[in-house]
Amino acid sequence: MTTQKISSAVIRRLPRYYRYLNILIEEGTDRISSAALSKRMNVTASQIRQDLNHFGGFGQQGYGYNVRYLHDEIGKVLGLDKGHNMAIIGMGNIGKALARSADFATNGFFVTAMYDANPDIIGRTYSDVTVQDAADLVSSLKENPVDIAVLTVPKDAVEALAQQVIEAGIKTIWNFAHCELVVPDDVVVENVYLVDSLMRLSYNDAHRSDR
Amino acid sequence: MTTQKISSAVIRRLPRYYRYLNILIEEGTDRISSAALSKRMNVTASQIRQDLNHFGGFGQQGYGYNVRYLHDEIGKVLGLDKGHNMAIIGMGNIGKALARSADFATNGFFVTAMYDANPDIIGRTYSDVTVQDAADLVSSLKENPVDIAVLTVPKDAVEALAQQVIEAGIKTIWNFAHCELVVPDDVVVENVYLVDSLMRLSYNDAHRSDR
Repeated sequence: MTTQKISSAVIRRLPRYYRYLNILIEEGTDRISSAALSKRMNVTASQIRQDLNHFGGFGQQGYGYNVRYLHDEIGKVLGLDKGHNMAIIGMGNIGKALARSADFATNGFFVTAMYDANPDIIGRTYSDVTVQDAADLVSSLKENPVDIAVLTVPKDAVEALAQQVIEAGIKTIWNFAHCELVVPDDVVVENVYLVDSLMRLSYNDAHRSDR
Repeated sequence: MTTQKISSAVIRRLPRYYRYLNILIEEGTDRISSAALSKRMNVTASQIRQDLNHFGGFGQQGYGYNVRYLHDEIGKVLGLDKGHNMAIIGMGNIGKALARSADFATNGFFVTAMYDANPDIIGRTYSDVTVQDAADLVSSLKENPVDIAVLTVPKDAVEALAQQVIEAGIKTIWNFAHCELVVPDDVVVENVYLVDSLMRLSYNDAHRSDR
């Protein structure tokens, strides 16, 4: 479908399009014009046409985009046409919050395993998944592989944990430890930096009148 | 200092520079070349020079950047030269995780108030701050204003809460409810979309060989 190379700037914007298209589907909207989508998303219509042009140019003037088709095509580019199983490692507050989030499953990300090192937490159940002993992490993940390891442990524990996860054969890591991991080239990491988000807020606060 | 208009793409990258400069300061590094910073940050040296050129062009060849100066200048652009007080509203798992994060205070973001509607949680103390009754939110925030309201409540409660916060005079909102808020023009909102981060991870997983 998408023969052109899509720029990383467009890729960055795709999740937001996907989210809006999801809402439109829920509302029962079949078609939407770039002008209507522009108003809704607060992005210029020309930006929308430029971005969505990568997906086949089927947004003809006066006719609009086929919401479901666009949703599915963007989903394929994002790799969402297949489901992802995830293991959360570290059942502190962040781990528990992620375990309870309904938004992940809606988008095909399923928490199928949880691990912790604390004897008080091992054996507890969150969202129907029982927390296993992190001491058995490598063997357990080898037996029951997942697509994504979610690392929700403190900064000083995360490097060693990442090594274990990679040893178990997992090559896709979602890291909440607020530090950049050093990993082999074939391992993909997405770091969640909440402080960066706060800094962007602070910037927009300080430059409010420029907007 | 910064007379040129800085593009939003550069702004997006500033928090990461700021983080690395923080680490360099902690390590006692006074000066760093664009080549060394490039290697460390895994960004091309020419990108670094282009980005940091906005801050005065003091990275002369063979001399390198003055780490502390650059750190402070970027900090000023990001509005980090003044501290920010924050109120966390909703002391569920995410609220508690944020309350306990040490990274915020290091960067001048101080949690000075917490609110919840649950009688079992009101009166509890997290990181030396006592949770107040969300029923008194508007009057309490009017009496003791904060710079940033952190909304960590479920999606179906967040619109009404944002209205209360704005009524109390707060114009800067950090929203964890996984939905976009409709707010007056003078209110600044930063939405944290963890699902977007997962989708980028999924994309990089699916396109691993393209990287």
